[in-house]
Amino acid sequence: MISSLLLGLLVPSVSALAQDDVTSQPTPAKRTVIDLSNYQSIAAKLIQAATTTDFAHQRLAELCDTFGPRFSGTTNLEAAIDWVLTRMKADGLENVHGEDVMVPHWVRGEESAEILEPTRSTLPMLGLGGSVATPKEGITAPALVVRSFDELQKRATEARGKIVLFNAPFVSYGQSVAYRARGASQAAKAGAVASLIRSVTPFGLQTPHTGMMNYETNVTRIPHAAITIEDAERLQRWQERGQKVVLRLNMSAQSLPDAPSRNVVAEIVGREKPDEIVVVSGHLDSWDISPGAIDDVGGVVSAWEAARLMHILGLRPRRTVRVVLWTNEENGLRGARSYAERHRQELAKHLLAIESDRGTFHPTGFSFQGNDRANAIVGQLASLLDGMHADKIVPGGGGADVEQLAPAGVPVMELTVEDANYFWFHHTTADTPDKVNPKDLGQCAAAMAVMAYGIADLPEILPR
Amino acid sequence: MISSLLLGLLVPSVSALAQDDVTSQPTPAKRTVIDLSNYQSIAAKLIQAATTTDFAHQRLAELCDTFGPRFSGTTNLEAAIDWVLTRMKADGLENVHGEDVMVPHWVRGEESAEILEPTRSTLPMLGLGGSVATPKEGITAPALVVRSFDELQKRATEARGKIVLFNAPFVSYGQSVAYRARGASQAAKAGAVASLIRSVTPFGLQTPHTGMMNYETNVTRIPHAAITIEDAERLQRWQERGQKVVLRLNMSAQSLPDAPSRNVVAEIVGREKPDEIVVVSGHLDSWDISPGAIDDVGGVVSAWEAARLMHILGLRPRRTVRVVLWTNEENGLRGARSYAERHRQELAKHLLAIESDRGTFHPTGFSFQGNDRANAIVGQLASLLDGMHADKIVPGGGGADVEQLAPAGVPVMELTVEDANYFWFHHTTADTPDKVNPKDLGQCAAAMAVMAYGIADLPEILPR
Repeated sequence: MISSLLLGLLVPSVSALAQDDVTSQPTPAKRTVIDLSNYQSIAAKLIQAATTTDFAHQRLAELCDTFGPRFSGTTNLEAAIDWVLTRMKADGLENVHGEDVMVPHWVRGEESAEILEPTRSTLPMLGLGGSVATPKEGITAPALVVRSFDELQKRATEARGKIVLFNAPFVSYGQSVAYRARGASQAAKAGAVASLIRSVTPFGLQTPHTGMMNYETNVTRIPHAAITIEDAERLQRWQERGQKVVLRLNMSAQSLPDAPSRNVVAEIVGREKPDEIVVVSGHLDSWDISPGAIDDVGGVVSAWEAARLMHILGLRPRRTVRVVLWTNEENGLRGARSYAERHRQELAKHLLAIESDRGTFHPTGFSFQGNDRANAIVGQLASLLDGMHADKIVPGGGGADVEQLAPAGVPVMELTVEDANYFWFHHTTADTPDKVNPKDLGQCAAAMAVMAYGIADLPEILPR
Repeated sequence: MISSLLLGLLVPSVSALAQDDVTSQPTPAKRTVIDLSNYQSIAAKLIQAATTTDFAHQRLAELCDTFGPRFSGTTNLEAAIDWVLTRMKADGLENVHGEDVMVPHWVRGEESAEILEPTRSTLPMLGLGGSVATPKEGITAPALVVRSFDELQKRATEARGKIVLFNAPFVSYGQSVAYRARGASQAAKAGAVASLIRSVTPFGLQTPHTGMMNYETNVTRIPHAAITIEDAERLQRWQERGQKVVLRLNMSAQSLPDAPSRNVVAEIVGREKPDEIVVVSGHLDSWDISPGAIDDVGGVVSAWEAARLMHILGLRPRRTVRVVLWTNEENGLRGARSYAERHRQELAKHLLAIESDRGTFHPTGFSFQGNDRANAIVGQLASLLDGMHADKIVPGGGGADVEQLAPAGVPVMELTVEDANYFWFHHTTADTPDKVNPKDLGQCAAAMAVMAYGIADLPEILPR
């Protein structure tokens, strides 16, 4: 998952903000506007099928183990896409195909960071996506540690020629990610030669977190990387004791020409109105250092399972349920943007686009923002999930991908989960299958299936 | 902290077992046997002085930051000992000196592990203390993953020529550490060429944990290392899918000749019976990859603060309070054993030896095993700590160091803490000052100070 902050919008995304509000928002009233009786037994079947097997988790683990990190521009990602296409056909899904997209191709290369003074030691680190390299011999410079942009502003005269470390404690992802997204240009404006951030997480075990960053136009591009909480605090303490801290940073990152990739598309074709579409989705790409089990193979498998379970159970809704597995969510959103462009003519008939990209934990419901009637419909369908406590509808947008369809008027929605610890794992090497509880994953798939089926099968279309 | 399992006793130590029982044991009755009125205001002063400053945490952080890992046999450890001796003298403590001890000197050297099949990738790993090296070219062999010694027994015919991985889920430290301590010899008996363990922790973020291991006599010595939970589970899944897993292990560890080190000793000399002694202690050495903030600089600083605060407050108890900072707790206990030998004649006049080595978290009280009257005295003194909820006495022994004095009849005691997450950090690079809450550390110091002062000042000696 990324924030739209990283895409140059420079405001927290609706989804990032909504995430913080999940627990405090009231559930919209579930006024009776639709006849649920048709859906109760269908929902029960989908939930039963999704939650009495660990098939989804086995698929998630196999995908993670076989292909590992699946970063945009890599053969790993394309091999994983091929594998998914083959498996989807074997599953019996319809219209299974890839849709070509050109994606950015940033390559990390060799990288390292080191403390030279006051005590020589290696710093676990990860360059940030989009960063430029250091010169071949690296950058050796004293460090200036600041807690915030405000502090940098106040100490701007000290920053020249330094490696600036933003040691900003985690407040929320939406707030703290600003240092990852914008830190390099802010530091460069003060004359810094490189910039570091404290990894964007409330907790770590010497765990660096990568993620996307941007450069402002007309500002010198300096290398930008993340170090761990532990080391950021150590550098802070040295500075507070008046000890000089000297660092060396080596990065060989480069941005190569755009590379071909694909969105994966598969369908359960609607029995009455096949050209009216409900999208269920997740993103197949991950960061280059992570298998991305939680972010977002869990979302991929949940969306995929939603359709596979309908097929297995012989459930064909009135309209088409379309699984879309986005490429390049992490560092460009090119997959979603390309889809919006390619399917422009169809978007008026996209009733709803659902994404799962808040991590794979116990589902709690969905975030959705619609008019009263749409909210009531969605709330009623969600009530079919109350047995597993996933019936809560909170105001908010969709995931970063489906948000790309919102400007064309497509209602968007995101699966919400108990994500209190999500950022412990986010964009790290520790985002692995063991972190995903098979029961939670089954319930995520069930929630996606029930909501998608309901919206696709209602007599009326979801009001906009 | 280590378990006596690792010292060839091959039974869980009293302290390891007691740790699991901390919450379930009743507090011994606090019968009135001593007149507490003399101690209430003294305890209040010590608590006040310990908990209204972050001096202890600053000292802990400075020690960790300045010297980093302090492994037996290293110049880091000896430089830290010199620094502590200097600071203790400056603090005004009495009879400050080092006591020479020869300690084992195991050196990790370069090391790495790699998956060659089915998918090439690096495995974060840590060799285990005392392990032999691989040949220079490393060991390349298929893996056999087992969940337990029992499973290895059942699959013994498959182990020949393999690298055996013990993927034993964490149950308790006492139980799970058996694979670290004894895994190599068990694997070697089945013909394995090297052995790995899943790190001994209930949770990790791709975090390997080191620690001590032993070889049985007359069994081939094979290299023994720890990998992460994430990778242990990945190897397990590949094996369960019938995929061949091939690993390469490179280790250059060696055991060098014993090296000189020192226990640190400092005193508040008793005003009436200076030859009667209460020991307060922690261990200054750490693993070679960790600054050991929790294990055990927190214990070191708590013991040190106990004496420093008495000095500052002008509190000189009837008997001597002796701070002992042990060397070589982690891989040999030579410090404690040497002390027991050197001070043999004095041990009959050691009233009590207290250690803090269960991690540095909020203190809950002490573990202690004595006769009814001794329990009642200790319980009454602990009641002086009820304001900070550190008044619980649970049955159990002391830390691994003070346990070395128990055979000579010295009553031993250990500070107990809220250690639910202790093993997340134990013997890792993430055992750093940021993990220690300054308030908790102040309270640990206060608890050590109040108990030590009380026992040292009572009109009667603690009954044995």
